[in-house]
Amino acid sequence: MIEAIGNQYVVARPVYSSNTFGEEFKKADRQHKTFLDHLKGCCSCSSQKAKKIALSLFPIASWLPAYKIKEWLLSDIVSGISTGLVAVLQGLAFALLVNIPPSYGLYAAFFPVITYFFLGTSKHISVGPFPVLSMMVGVVVTRVASGGNTSPELSSSSMENDSLDAQEQEKIMVAASVTVLSGIIQLLLGVLQIGFVVIYLSESLISGFTTAAAIHVLVSQLKFMLQLTVPAHSDPFSLFKVLESVFTQIEKTNIADLVTSVIILVIVFIVKEINQRFRNKLPVPIPIELIMTVIATGVSYGFNFKETFGVAVIGNMTLGFQPPITPSVEVFQDTIGDSFGIAIVGFAVAFSVASVYSLKYDYPIDGNQELIALGISNIFTGAFRGFAGSTALSRSGVQESTGGKTQVAGLLSAVIVLIVIVAIGFLLQPLQKSVLAALALGNLKGMLMQFAEIGRLWKKDKYDCLIWIMTFIFAIVLGLGLGLAASVAFQLLTIVFRTQFPKCSTLANVGRSNIYKNRKNYADVYEPEGVKIFRCPSPIYFANIGFFKQKLTEAVGFSPLRILRKRNKALKKIRKLQKRGLIQVTPKGFICTSDGFKDSDEELDNNQIEELDQPINTTDLPFEIDWNADLPFNITVPKVSLHSLVLDFSAVSFLDISSMRGLKTILQEFIRIKVDVYIVGTDDDFIDKLTRCAFFDDEVTDSIFFLTIHDAVLHILMKKDYSTSKFNPSQEKEMKFDFTINTNGGLRNRECQVPVETRF
Amino acid sequence: MIEAIGNQYVVARPVYSSNTFGEEFKKADRQHKTFLDHLKGCCSCSSQKAKKIALSLFPIASWLPAYKIKEWLLSDIVSGISTGLVAVLQGLAFALLVNIPPSYGLYAAFFPVITYFFLGTSKHISVGPFPVLSMMVGVVVTRVASGGNTSPELSSSSMENDSLDAQEQEKIMVAASVTVLSGIIQLLLGVLQIGFVVIYLSESLISGFTTAAAIHVLVSQLKFMLQLTVPAHSDPFSLFKVLESVFTQIEKTNIADLVTSVIILVIVFIVKEINQRFRNKLPVPIPIELIMTVIATGVSYGFNFKETFGVAVIGNMTLGFQPPITPSVEVFQDTIGDSFGIAIVGFAVAFSVASVYSLKYDYPIDGNQELIALGISNIFTGAFRGFAGSTALSRSGVQESTGGKTQVAGLLSAVIVLIVIVAIGFLLQPLQKSVLAALALGNLKGMLMQFAEIGRLWKKDKYDCLIWIMTFIFAIVLGLGLGLAASVAFQLLTIVFRTQFPKCSTLANVGRSNIYKNRKNYADVYEPEGVKIFRCPSPIYFANIGFFKQKLTEAVGFSPLRILRKRNKALKKIRKLQKRGLIQVTPKGFICTSDGFKDSDEELDNNQIEELDQPINTTDLPFEIDWNADLPFNITVPKVSLHSLVLDFSAVSFLDISSMRGLKTILQEFIRIKVDVYIVGTDDDFIDKLTRCAFFDDEVTDSIFFLTIHDAVLHILMKKDYSTSKFNPSQEKEMKFDFTINTNGGLRNRECQVPVETRF
Repeated sequence: MIEAIGNQYVVARPVYSSNTFGEEFKKADRQHKTFLDHLKGCCSCSSQKAKKIALSLFPIASWLPAYKIKEWLLSDIVSGISTGLVAVLQGLAFALLVNIPPSYGLYAAFFPVITYFFLGTSKHISVGPFPVLSMMVGVVVTRVASGGNTSPELSSSSMENDSLDAQEQEKIMVAASVTVLSGIIQLLLGVLQIGFVVIYLSESLISGFTTAAAIHVLVSQLKFMLQLTVPAHSDPFSLFKVLESVFTQIEKTNIADLVTSVIILVIVFIVKEINQRFRNKLPVPIPIELIMTVIATGVSYGFNFKETFGVAVIGNMTLGFQPPITPSVEVFQDTIGDSFGIAIVGFAVAFSVASVYSLKYDYPIDGNQELIALGISNIFTGAFRGFAGSTALSRSGVQESTGGKTQVAGLLSAVIVLIVIVAIGFLLQPLQKSVLAALALGNLKGMLMQFAEIGRLWKKDKYDCLIWIMTFIFAIVLGLGLGLAASVAFQLLTIVFRTQFPKCSTLANVGRSNIYKNRKNYADVYEPEGVKIFRCPSPIYFANIGFFKQKLTEAVGFSPLRILRKRNKALKKIRKLQKRGLIQVTPKGFICTSDGFKDSDEELDNNQIEELDQPINTTDLPFEIDWNADLPFNITVPKVSLHSLVLDFSAVSFLDISSMRGLKTILQEFIRIKVDVYIVGTDDDFIDKLTRCAFFDDEVTDSIFFLTIHDAVLHILMKKDYSTSKFNPSQEKEMKFDFTINTNGGLRNRECQVPVETRF
Repeated sequence: MIEAIGNQYVVARPVYSSNTFGEEFKKADRQHKTFLDHLKGCCSCSSQKAKKIALSLFPIASWLPAYKIKEWLLSDIVSGISTGLVAVLQGLAFALLVNIPPSYGLYAAFFPVITYFFLGTSKHISVGPFPVLSMMVGVVVTRVASGGNTSPELSSSSMENDSLDAQEQEKIMVAASVTVLSGIIQLLLGVLQIGFVVIYLSESLISGFTTAAAIHVLVSQLKFMLQLTVPAHSDPFSLFKVLESVFTQIEKTNIADLVTSVIILVIVFIVKEINQRFRNKLPVPIPIELIMTVIATGVSYGFNFKETFGVAVIGNMTLGFQPPITPSVEVFQDTIGDSFGIAIVGFAVAFSVASVYSLKYDYPIDGNQELIALGISNIFTGAFRGFAGSTALSRSGVQESTGGKTQVAGLLSAVIVLIVIVAIGFLLQPLQKSVLAALALGNLKGMLMQFAEIGRLWKKDKYDCLIWIMTFIFAIVLGLGLGLAASVAFQLLTIVFRTQFPKCSTLANVGRSNIYKNRKNYADVYEPEGVKIFRCPSPIYFANIGFFKQKLTEAVGFSPLRILRKRNKALKKIRKLQKRGLIQVTPKGFICTSDGFKDSDEELDNNQIEELDQPINTTDLPFEIDWNADLPFNITVPKVSLHSLVLDFSAVSFLDISSMRGLKTILQEFIRIKVDVYIVGTDDDFIDKLTRCAFFDDEVTDSIFFLTIHDAVLHILMKKDYSTSKFNPSQEKEMKFDFTINTNGGLRNRECQVPVETRF
């Protein structure tokens, strides 16, 4: 029991090194699970476990039987119809991003919902087309199916419809194949339970990436708004190439399309702003997109815009479904990288939106099951000529805000899409493509507003800001697929950066108790003489061990290796002196008579006397002493006032092999010049790991570990006291040239070693 | 002054939170250098600084005037001649790796030495061809200059010599261009002072990479040893393709070449083993490569091997030099990635070898100047049709062990190469290519022995082992260039991995003093009631904040959010009760008379009484209290025995924006359910940063920081004592249904807040 005595921190206990502490407090026997145990745990099978897995694979089996028809059905129906209408429009609009005819967007809005109904764990998201994903698929379609599309004559009216059709079929094929492949990737990730990969997409990265995607969407929709023929461009730099194409033929703009789309864009923006500002007063948001579509379709039909102004309309909606297609393995090979990106981004978006609702309504979602659900949905959609889906935040918002309680609402929204596909799709035929483009752009405001993030991030964390900016630049310049890969790599690099140049500091005692703080931060500090306390506030590994060593050398003010060398050189000279008979050996040590002393070079001798005539520095004997060799007196060796070095490793969460080797070298160098090194603040695992890696030997022993800085400092002071009290100042003057070294213990066990003494 | 009292750790001081400590011990005013200051420091110019920079750019200006002719010249001459002979042989042999005629290898051995003499800072390395680099250049040459080389008829004898020559010229051109480009990259890196990038090549990575390179070398030399025509294959999988080509035509092997090379290989291996084993007894290592070359050349010439057995010989050595060529910008564009890899690997190898000698002989080397020197050397070499160089460990070993003191030895070795180039090169014409291949393989033993590393690394550190294996696999499968990039990316990922799943633990007091250790490790521990001490031993950032939250939730045993919700639900019901008039408000709080109490549902009431009839848990009042609303009694809310949570963040070296947001949410959730949260062990910078990021508000204040775990625990115990002593047990029975909440202070300032009390 610990008792609080007023507001006082009172402690009285022995000084503990890790070893003495370990002796006093026995560790509990703890069975650590081995890798094999974990594997066994994973692979063991019981009927209960099997049932649980089966249930988790089909979440519908859990929630549908518990469906409260009376309470939920009505709101699900209302929500389903609203969501369905939004899904139809978004499907059509986002199909333009994929560069395929709008009607295929309806398939993308229909099929995934069906499978998700059975397999999904989120009750509120509306799966289906998502602009960023559509854009990513569109990039692949442009690249792989471009064929001769880059040549301008392809788009000229002289081309036959057949060829255009064939090209369109190829595009649809590519989109479907990419969708299937990304679905397969998602399914695999889900089955292998590695859905956690999305945690590598940090908030800053997603923000920067979606902003760049919005710019891509904006640029890609220009051609529909201006009704221009822009050849396909492939990454990198596709954005700039497209912009160039647009501006070089800006005079060919179809004014009718431009005017329509600008009007619609302005109205949509204004009404969305109203929806936003009065969201508490409005019962439901004004379905402005639906209204505009209906009006635009009516006007276009009524005034026969297609003929009158030559605008591009949706045209020819195939009623009903088309037979499934086999995805192309060739396309798979070409697009594996892009598909991986699509799979990851699609899942990341769906999962983050689902998480928001699962938190809000307090129900669990399962990341890996979501991956499986999305994967199968995409495979299914791709097989029926749709394109990759995830969820659009705006559409999910509609589903939730209009009262959707379960995926029954999703299913009903799919029914609405189904009705459009099989029955009333033809009504949309006179709708201008530019209207769809404007509607797609209407969704971008939120994404583009994210530019404001830069300022916020800069104030808070430079690295996060850098991630945002670099992700944005990568995604703009390299394109969405490659840009995402580069961004993730860059982001991981920042984690390394953050730890690579740690703010190492020298600590000192503040307040004369057990508190040690950065010496530079406090005016009144106490540093025990000859003791340096050095703190490294980050893990140490291959990329910063050099930096650590450099900072440590700066902090102590000398390179231990150089000292060691100078001492060894000194030792060599001493050996020479002995050979010349200038040094005598006594049983207790070595005596250099003043006679022998005078024989050697006078000038250097004086130097030597000055150097050695310093009784305080008894510990820093100027040579690594080999007791078969002998006395010095010809050399200057730099003074080292340091006798103990305390390394505060409480924030060093790991060491790798390189850093371990480096650390050992550092410790050895210090120990060899008689500087005692103590490591404090590590946890037990740390020491265990070092032991396992054969870190310790005769020089560097595991007795260097102390529990806290204060323990180590007290130990040092005590040892110091002991050694100075044994030192007799009266002897000093009498035996001025007596040079004694006590050999007890040697270096083997520094703990119980009587300090090395040198007297002159 | 701190005094050591025996072996005792005795401390008596006030309990400090970071705030109270900050008040007592004023921080020194410290001017932190801004980015601008640093920039100014860098850009400031003085004549002294200019002179220093000029000197550092031409290290020769420092060391040559200090050259001790008497002492050094002789050993430099001896060393220069030995190194020169080795350089000739290695140049010839490594040219085969580049897939260009051997004579160009002599240029690669000559030119870089000249520039390095003036610009280099290492005194002992012998710059020039290095097998791994040659191999990397060779891969590029094969890919870019392959042209029609993959078609087998090209190599048939029906080809005209002209075409072969043209192809050879193209290969030389590509090798030269790549060399120049990698030189430019090195020069840029050096000028921009970013030579530190090589720290990303950890020891494990370099070991795995060079082992893979050795395998590549081995495979690429097979065709020379067997005298087969292997078409060029490009990465990835080139290694396997080459092996396939070799084995499919194994019956075409030229037996004479095979026998010669095997004999030479065996002899070289044996003699090298002898050199190694008796290196202390031998004055110089036996120059077996030179001996074998002389013998082989003699035998080949004497027996006219070329005619007799149809072996491939070096043949036609152009005497003298060839005019410089302009590198091809087209090749630059194709090979920028590879050149970057070559630049980095070349520098890394040279720098690491140079570091070994600089440590051994204790002189400084300058990484960025080395980059500049190597860069200019490579540009120079490339311009004169050589290929990229670095240093070969074996050759540098010869230069150093034969007594080389300065780069004068290097210069003399270049003179030897020069003599071969301009005068006696023709003597080597009868030498079989297979002999050169065997000599190149003779250098690989050391690299191949590195396979033993795997076992060592596995025992020490799984991650390092994984880096080795993955680097090896990447480099084998993807080829050296792409493999290196993938390996570096993977290696950086491991740093993230290491911190991504931290071993979080719950701490408890061991020994009743101020020591807190992992509760599970010790048998006899003390945990203050209602206090949880949780330690996270790694930085927290976007990739592990979720994991941290999960582990914390597991450790405390409940989700604070869920508790908060249930309490809020309870609150709602209380509001309802109040509306029905079952709860009365008094000026001091809220009183629920037993009359009103009986009115609500009996069964739930009992539950409610049991729930609330626990005077100990006064802090976990079952609702976040809004004082405009009122009393409860219809609901069960889970009990929370926890009243204080201490987070040990001493190893949390940084937080990023994502984790900050996550951490704040976690803190809010706990604080809202009346669990006091304390963060301990952070340094001052940490708190400063949180303040800068607007982390603190009315709920989460900066008074949650304490210096140590023990400070926080003492504070908690004191607070607890105070609140329980104020509690009057006699009152408890009398006022069983009196439900009082003291509103003083509210949540605003938890530090001075009188604990919230609930009585029944």
